[in-house]
Amino acid sequence: MAPAHLDVRRAVRAELDDLPRGATVLVACSGGADSLALAAALAWVGRRAGLRTGGVTVDHGLQDGSAHRARAAAAAMARLGLDPVTAVHLRVPAGGPGPEGAARAARYAALDAAAARFGDACVLLGHTRDDQAETVLLGLARGSGARSLAGMAPRTGRYRRPLLGLAREVVRASVPGDLEPWDDPHNREPAYARVRVRDQVLPVLEKELGPGVAAALARSAELLRADADALDAEAELARRASVIDRASYDVAELGRLSAAVRGRVIRSAAIAAGSPPTDLTAGHVRSVEMLVTAWRGQAGIDLPGSVRAVRRDGVLSFASSR
Amino acid sequence: MAPAHLDVRRAVRAELDDLPRGATVLVACSGGADSLALAAALAWVGRRAGLRTGGVTVDHGLQDGSAHRARAAAAAMARLGLDPVTAVHLRVPAGGPGPEGAARAARYAALDAAAARFGDACVLLGHTRDDQAETVLLGLARGSGARSLAGMAPRTGRYRRPLLGLAREVVRASVPGDLEPWDDPHNREPAYARVRVRDQVLPVLEKELGPGVAAALARSAELLRADADALDAEAELARRASVIDRASYDVAELGRLSAAVRGRVIRSAAIAAGSPPTDLTAGHVRSVEMLVTAWRGQAGIDLPGSVRAVRRDGVLSFASSR
Repeated sequence: MAPAHLDVRRAVRAELDDLPRGATVLVACSGGADSLALAAALAWVGRRAGLRTGGVTVDHGLQDGSAHRARAAAAAMARLGLDPVTAVHLRVPAGGPGPEGAARAARYAALDAAAARFGDACVLLGHTRDDQAETVLLGLARGSGARSLAGMAPRTGRYRRPLLGLAREVVRASVPGDLEPWDDPHNREPAYARVRVRDQVLPVLEKELGPGVAAALARSAELLRADADALDAEAELARRASVIDRASYDVAELGRLSAAVRGRVIRSAAIAAGSPPTDLTAGHVRSVEMLVTAWRGQAGIDLPGSVRAVRRDGVLSFASSR
Repeated sequence: MAPAHLDVRRAVRAELDDLPRGATVLVACSGGADSLALAAALAWVGRRAGLRTGGVTVDHGLQDGSAHRARAAAAAMARLGLDPVTAVHLRVPAGGPGPEGAARAARYAALDAAAARFGDACVLLGHTRDDQAETVLLGLARGSGARSLAGMAPRTGRYRRPLLGLAREVVRASVPGDLEPWDDPHNREPAYARVRVRDQVLPVLEKELGPGVAAALARSAELLRADADALDAEAELARRASVIDRASYDVAELGRLSAAVRGRVIRSAAIAAGSPPTDLTAGHVRSVEMLVTAWRGQAGIDLPGSVRAVRRDGVLSFASSR
C-alpha cells in the first residue's frame, strides 16, 4: 500500500487540476486530523502547481479554549507554509435552527467572507468517505428520497471536498508527525446522531455486512446524486411546461409525467406556495398526486404551512388557506 | 390501535380491489407466521369480494421434516377455507447460483406453474415492511445505486405483496389463535446476511436513530423505485435514439444525456454486448463514460466478460475481445 500522504496528495492534486497558476485556494481547518491532513497536502501540492494557498480556521466561541485552539490551528497552517492564514472568531447567536445548524451557517458565512477577501478563492473541506457514509445513513433514517441519500457533493459553488473518496483512516495516517491534531470532544458526544452513527451503527454494519460498507454507502451516494440531479432538472422543465399561472398547474400535463418527476413538480409547487420543505412529507406529496392520477372528485388536500391543494376544471391549484 | 387482523385485511382488500368477481388469487404460504396471516386475511377478504381463493405451499426438500411441514401448511390453508390448496414438493438441484438462489428460482417456477394451472391466477407473497427494510440494507451494502436500494416491488407480473406497508409485528399479531405458525430455524441462522441484518443491524439502527428506521427505509425504497423506473425508461428511449447498429452508439447523442441516463445506457449496452451484470461495476461504467465526456484519445476500456469498449470517429462500440 502506498504511504497515506501520497494518496491524500493525489486526491488534492486531482481536485485542483482545473485551476490556473496563481489561483488562490483556501483550506478550512479546525485543527482536527482530517483538515490538518488536507492543509498539509494542499501546501505540498499548491507549491508545485503554482497556486496561492492559504487557510481559514473558524472559532465558534462555543467551547472553552476555542480561541486558543483556533490560534494553534492557524500556527500549524502557517508552519506548513500556507499564506495567508486567518483565524475568524465568531459569536454564534443563540436560538435559530438549533446550535448545530446555527454554528454551521455562521461557519459558512465566515468562510465565504474570507474567500471573497482573497480574490474569490475556492475553499477545500476535509470531509472523508466515512463522513459521507455517515451522512447517507442519517439521510436513510429520514426516509426522504434520493436527494437526502446523495450525501455531500464533491463540489458546491466555491467549496470542494477532495477527500470524499478516501477512508478516514488513510487521511488521519497522513498527518505529518510534527503536527498535533486536536481531538474535538464533540466528536465523541453521543447526544449527536452523527456520533452515534459513527461509533455504534457503522461498526455493526461493517461487522455484519463486510468491511466495504462505508465505501458502498459512498458509492451509492454518488450514483443517487446523479439520479437526483437528472430528475430535479427534468422536474424544473416539467414544472415550467405545466404551470398556468403562479400557483396553478395543468392536470393533463402533470398526468403525462413519470411518477418520479410528477412527485418532484408537486413538491416544488407546494414549497413555492409556502409549505415548509421540512414539514412536507412524501405522504403529503402522494395525496396531492392522487388528485391528478386517481381523480374521483375528492376534496382538496391540506398541506403544512396552511397551504391547500385543490383540483378544479383540470387545474391543480395551491393556495394559502390562512 | 385497531386489532392487527383488521389492518392486514384492509391491506389485502386494497391490493385486490382491481380484480373482477370470480378471479383466482393464490397465497404462497410456507406455514410461517407472515404467510399464514396473509392466508387468513385472503380467505376472509376473498369470501366477501367473490374471489376464488387458494393456496400453494412449496416444499424445497432441503430440511428434515419439510414434507411434513408442507402438509401441515396445506391443511391450515384448507381449514381457513382456501380451495384449491396445493403442496408442491421440489428437488432443488445442487450447485447453480448458491443454495439460496437455486431454492428461490425453483420456488418461483413452482408458483408460476400452480398459478398457470389455476387460470393464470395472481399470487400473494407475505413480505412485510421489515423484510423490505432488510432488503434495502442488503442493497446498500452492495453500493449499486437506486435499483438495488428500491427493494421489492409491491407488484411484479402476477405477484403482489399486500403486506409491504405493514410492520412484521402487526402481521404476526394477526395470525388466528387456532393456527400454529412454523418457526423456520433458517430465520435464526447467522450464516445468512439477511438474518444478521434482522437480528444485529436493524436493532442497532432503531436504538441509535429512532424506532422509525424500518419505516423510513421502506419509504426511501418506494421513492427510489419511482426514480429508478423513470430513469430506466428514459435510458431505454435514449439507447434507441443513440444506437447506430447492434453494438455501436453515437457519441454526440450520448454526450447530450444527463449523467444518470448516460450511465444507464452504457450499462445496458455493455450487458447487451455480453458483459455479466453481476461483474459490471459503477467504476467500469464511469471509465466507459470518460470515453464520451472526457475524450483525449485514450485507449479502449476492458469490461468483464471479455467485452471491450472503444471510441473511434465519434462512435462508441462494444465488442467481444475473445
